[in-house]
Amino acid sequence: MNDRARHEALDAADPLASLRDRFRLREGRIYLDGNSLGAPPESALRALATAAEDEWGGELVGAWNSADWIGLPERLGDRIGALIGAAPGQVVAADATSVNLHKLLVTALGLRPGRRTIVSTSDNFPTDLYMAEGLVDLLGADRCRLRTIAPDALDELDAVVDDDVAVVMLTHVDFRSGRRLDLQDLTRRVQARGALVLWDLAHSAGAMPLDLDAAGADLAVGCGYKYLNGGPGAPAFLYVAARHQAAARQPLTGWMGHARPFAFESAYAPGEGIRRFLCGTPAVLSMRALEGALDVFDDVDLGALRAKSEALGDAFIDAVEGSRVADAFVLASPRAAADRGSQVSLRHADAHALVRALIEADVVGDFRAPDLLRFGFAPLYTRFVDVHEAVQRLETIVVEGRHLEPRLRERARVT
Amino acid sequence: MNDRARHEALDAADPLASLRDRFRLREGRIYLDGNSLGAPPESALRALATAAEDEWGGELVGAWNSADWIGLPERLGDRIGALIGAAPGQVVAADATSVNLHKLLVTALGLRPGRRTIVSTSDNFPTDLYMAEGLVDLLGADRCRLRTIAPDALDELDAVVDDDVAVVMLTHVDFRSGRRLDLQDLTRRVQARGALVLWDLAHSAGAMPLDLDAAGADLAVGCGYKYLNGGPGAPAFLYVAARHQAAARQPLTGWMGHARPFAFESAYAPGEGIRRFLCGTPAVLSMRALEGALDVFDDVDLGALRAKSEALGDAFIDAVEGSRVADAFVLASPRAAADRGSQVSLRHADAHALVRALIEADVVGDFRAPDLLRFGFAPLYTRFVDVHEAVQRLETIVVEGRHLEPRLRERARVT
Repeated sequence: MNDRARHEALDAADPLASLRDRFRLREGRIYLDGNSLGAPPESALRALATAAEDEWGGELVGAWNSADWIGLPERLGDRIGALIGAAPGQVVAADATSVNLHKLLVTALGLRPGRRTIVSTSDNFPTDLYMAEGLVDLLGADRCRLRTIAPDALDELDAVVDDDVAVVMLTHVDFRSGRRLDLQDLTRRVQARGALVLWDLAHSAGAMPLDLDAAGADLAVGCGYKYLNGGPGAPAFLYVAARHQAAARQPLTGWMGHARPFAFESAYAPGEGIRRFLCGTPAVLSMRALEGALDVFDDVDLGALRAKSEALGDAFIDAVEGSRVADAFVLASPRAAADRGSQVSLRHADAHALVRALIEADVVGDFRAPDLLRFGFAPLYTRFVDVHEAVQRLETIVVEGRHLEPRLRERARVT
Repeated sequence: MNDRARHEALDAADPLASLRDRFRLREGRIYLDGNSLGAPPESALRALATAAEDEWGGELVGAWNSADWIGLPERLGDRIGALIGAAPGQVVAADATSVNLHKLLVTALGLRPGRRTIVSTSDNFPTDLYMAEGLVDLLGADRCRLRTIAPDALDELDAVVDDDVAVVMLTHVDFRSGRRLDLQDLTRRVQARGALVLWDLAHSAGAMPLDLDAAGADLAVGCGYKYLNGGPGAPAFLYVAARHQAAARQPLTGWMGHARPFAFESAYAPGEGIRRFLCGTPAVLSMRALEGALDVFDDVDLGALRAKSEALGDAFIDAVEGSRVADAFVLASPRAAADRGSQVSLRHADAHALVRALIEADVVGDFRAPDLLRFGFAPLYTRFVDVHEAVQRLETIVVEGRHLEPRLRERARVT
């Protein structure tokens, strides 16, 4: 049953409804791809324009001091920290997620001398596995190994984590299915076996409360351009628990991580605390956009954000299940909201053509090979009527067979 | 002799004079720090606004295709390649310079199996040395060593490069003195000993013609935010000669360097050619600013650019030498224009206070510890009257002893 009035009532009762006004969204388009690229907050666009026109344009190199560009990685880090349950001084915004994975995998090996194995799941986001592979190639099998396990082997993690495992690298919310792992329980179980956990929070940060410190987490990375809405290719972030920082060594020892970058000393000396995880010059323009984007989260109750995210996902599944095309799809995400991130995926043999037909109908989700339609519900700006309307249009497409048109069945270059 | 009319005549005869109109520069301020952060081209500000408002704001995730964001690293790479004498397919814009150094140092070690030493000069830019140090720490001394030599030992490079040297890492234009090395000769001499050369072009690209291919260069990195004017923290670039690419392996094997990034395969397979040097998601907003900035170089004769750069440096030195305060300074740059990059440095015990007094007088240069005043002459927008006026104001400050005021003698946080 996909009833418009019921969805309108949910919007009317939504305590976060007014946040949508802070985003640049075209009327009529239903954007369910904020888990790939978040929609632009007006405050991000303003911050970017200020950074370009007033800071770079007005103050040139002086803005490193006057606009505190030099403080951006830590300033943004602490603000992201507040969204993931990290006390100040444990997060920096820097580089791309992949680059940060390299830093933290090496850090983990260094913190667990005598252990050389990285464990991950075979369904992890590819770049996480690729970065571990690259490190194995670099260090050689006598110093680093990658062991991938089936996702359901996480239930027997205690048996998997033997004395050679330095770090278990897990993604909190799976990019295909949206399955959400139990961060606290898995952290505890891995640590009980003497290893560290490296969490990838790409599909979690900004979509739900996280409590890294309370979970006793070790290491984490995450993405600035999904639910944090920092713009395309926004800087990523990394978290290193305070207790590990003094002993931590990462290999990308660039000048911004030096204890005294502007003394131009010839020998490297790691900066205090989390600063040692910086490498090169921060991407100021991109960072300022991300900084503006984070303004949207001021005063947002993350519990309410999560409740809305769960309700949006449930509403979507209910609407599909109540539609005339329910039997055409297999739900590829957990049915229980508590086990999902902020997305729902449907399986269909013609997923690619369906996603393209939806885009023509102004509903933007995305395709993940080989057969998934993926819909993200960014709770800051997605409405319940958007869910209603998206399912309505999907139903029409399937019923009318619009996705069977040959031109929709070619492969797009990027999706 | 610092004669205004003569400098005005030089401006009147300058074939590149009109390019200054393409930059956002405040009247009255004399900006001689484009070697730290280039001034904003109007075309960079426009491209950035378009990327943010129209592409991100208008097309959201669809802009990866419609605005060809995915092609940015290679598209910018080829345009930068045209400025450094690299045929297409050998340069990508990506990450920070420091991160790219890590990639290419590992690449060099892989291309020269059995050799483990990185040679560099002790006066190299610190981050270059730090990145090599980080790699030595990571790989261990049995696989990687760093040997730094005095700058004047470059004359005996043939003796230095023994059978253990995999790569010589050199910065083409020194960040302190502006001394310019002979790229072609040094490349040839290192290669004759069986090693590779990794050139850092941070202070060269965009300031002078370079001819990497003709020099038979192996590897290079460079910076987007100095003479390329890409904005604060602009993406850096890297060059790998076509002949090395098929055998090249770099350790930051992120998804953007994969042969098929959007197939989400679980095993890494390096992309064709220069693409394999990419790692994470490109910083699109920063890249689009850099792309706009490169428009300024369209139709610029790089030979004329270099001639103006040399003339600006000579005019500055002449003006200082002809001033009443000539004896207060020691020239810290080569006297011969051919041996300099696009900057001139002066040595003075009170360099820091003098730089601050100059900034108060609206002349922006910068300080490099312990005793250098550094002046960059970006030939796209610096006028000969700016040189005249800068020296005039410097003379006034020294004669009046303004730099002796106590408040100017404190250390600024960043300079």
